[in-house]
Amino acid sequence: MASSPKYLTGDKAAINEFLDKFDVFLFDCDGVLWSGDHLFEGTVETLELLRSRGKQVVFVTNNSTKSRADYKKKLESMGIPATVDEVFGSSYSAAIYISRIIKPQPPRNKVFVLGEAGVEAELESENISYIGGTDPSLRRDITPEDFKAIASGEALDPAVGYVLAGLDFHVNYLKLSIAFQYLRRGAKFLATNVDSTLPNAGSLFIGAGGISAPLIRAMGGEEPIAFGKPNQSMMDAIEGKFRFDRSRACMVGDRLDTDIKFGIEGRLGGTLCVLTGVSKREDWEAENPAAVPAAYVDTLGDLRVAA
Amino acid sequence: MASSPKYLTGDKAAINEFLDKFDVFLFDCDGVLWSGDHLFEGTVETLELLRSRGKQVVFVTNNSTKSRADYKKKLESMGIPATVDEVFGSSYSAAIYISRIIKPQPPRNKVFVLGEAGVEAELESENISYIGGTDPSLRRDITPEDFKAIASGEALDPAVGYVLAGLDFHVNYLKLSIAFQYLRRGAKFLATNVDSTLPNAGSLFIGAGGISAPLIRAMGGEEPIAFGKPNQSMMDAIEGKFRFDRSRACMVGDRLDTDIKFGIEGRLGGTLCVLTGVSKREDWEAENPAAVPAAYVDTLGDLRVAA
Repeated sequence: MASSPKYLTGDKAAINEFLDKFDVFLFDCDGVLWSGDHLFEGTVETLELLRSRGKQVVFVTNNSTKSRADYKKKLESMGIPATVDEVFGSSYSAAIYISRIIKPQPPRNKVFVLGEAGVEAELESENISYIGGTDPSLRRDITPEDFKAIASGEALDPAVGYVLAGLDFHVNYLKLSIAFQYLRRGAKFLATNVDSTLPNAGSLFIGAGGISAPLIRAMGGEEPIAFGKPNQSMMDAIEGKFRFDRSRACMVGDRLDTDIKFGIEGRLGGTLCVLTGVSKREDWEAENPAAVPAAYVDTLGDLRVAA
Repeated sequence: MASSPKYLTGDKAAINEFLDKFDVFLFDCDGVLWSGDHLFEGTVETLELLRSRGKQVVFVTNNSTKSRADYKKKLESMGIPATVDEVFGSSYSAAIYISRIIKPQPPRNKVFVLGEAGVEAELESENISYIGGTDPSLRRDITPEDFKAIASGEALDPAVGYVLAGLDFHVNYLKLSIAFQYLRRGAKFLATNVDSTLPNAGSLFIGAGGISAPLIRAMGGEEPIAFGKPNQSMMDAIEGKFRFDRSRACMVGDRLDTDIKFGIEGRLGGTLCVLTGVSKREDWEAENPAAVPAAYVDTLGDLRVAA
């Protein structure tokens, strides 16, 4: 059993001591900086405080619907200055893996995408061929002709060798059927991330894991290779870029099973849980918690008292 | 290890001996009588042969998209005479369970349906209140306003106490999000069936299990109560209706994990697997097969040589 996390809210000395231990802060976004379109109080000031103390700030998100450029825009629209390089998303992580590790070769080098424009943008940034995604011709009901054409293969592109599933707000039976048929024909199964839920509007919605779940079930339990937190391929990519000392880095997040686990398995110097998102204190006090953070605060803004 | 299934194709004496052992034949439909809109050769004649020998025929389907009346029409359009009473579907099985076992009481007596008209028709036949289903106002993309109204509960009906998930060819993120929110607020999780795949057009597509899978994942692994084969609530309902001797009944199907398991766990006198659907001989010859049939034929029509 890990030791109890330290509660930092309201304890200026403990906060300063904690912040001094790190040079790099990796931030989960949804549920930490904001929920949906609602920015939490004190987020901007806390990030300013960290930057003013010379800390490197990295925004690490499993949200696959947005590209890094989209995220930079979102951060700035919230009043948080950021560069594209400071953003790591699961779509980017997936694109990097495909282009640099898999290195797809013809004749089966295309990716069939279940997801939004963010996945497409990151695949494009790595020059990966793809179909599906936001293609408007697939945003419709399945027809009897589709069943035949998908079954026969007529509706399929023989160059597809990979299925990449991310969060798709336009998921439908037609796209799932096409993805399943590619998998049945041997395409490699990848997912930007498999988060069970998505925090939004102060509640929880279906996460990217809900898009791959029908395929996992139809494939008899075959799980995709997933790139979001807590998968360490993302940590390796971040480290490869920033070349930081892991012992001087802290992961800040709201979910034990993704963020905090990501930091612990990545052997970072620290993890900080905020209670503005999915996980609550009961979750790490329960038996067999997914992960136990080193410290926690009620909200990220509570760190401001350090100033 | 169960003994090897007997191969009956081409063996007239063995077929007659097998048929003589039973008074009732329960038939799975998709993958046994037909695949999609393609009727297998010999289906009609085989059913006529069984009826001419005084056998009771029951059509047992996990397809939740069709009501019993729809199925009777489908059977007749294929040239197979049938009555509504000879049809047992997973939607009917679910409706019976809700009305007769659960007996929903106000103020939370409504069912939110993920599924097609077949589920609605069976719920109506049991006077169960429902929303969702084929409601055209839910066949659209989710909007930012939806996220807020679902999260706040404004978009929800407080009378909903049950979520019933069946195969929904019009599944979308909006409907999944609403269903998930009802479940988070304590609605009971039910599924017509959780088949991993759907045979159609000579291939496999996403089954009803793919509709509940995103909800199961989002609910942290909570499984619905499911009513399709191999769930024995369906067998009990069939027995309740036909009052047959289980030792004189035979389940005919194409799937080890649903049909054959259903017959074995229901302690029927026999099970017959046809190779025109999902399962192949390798499947029961593998280690730890889902179930092993008593006998098998290449196609249902092979039974005609008994005549």
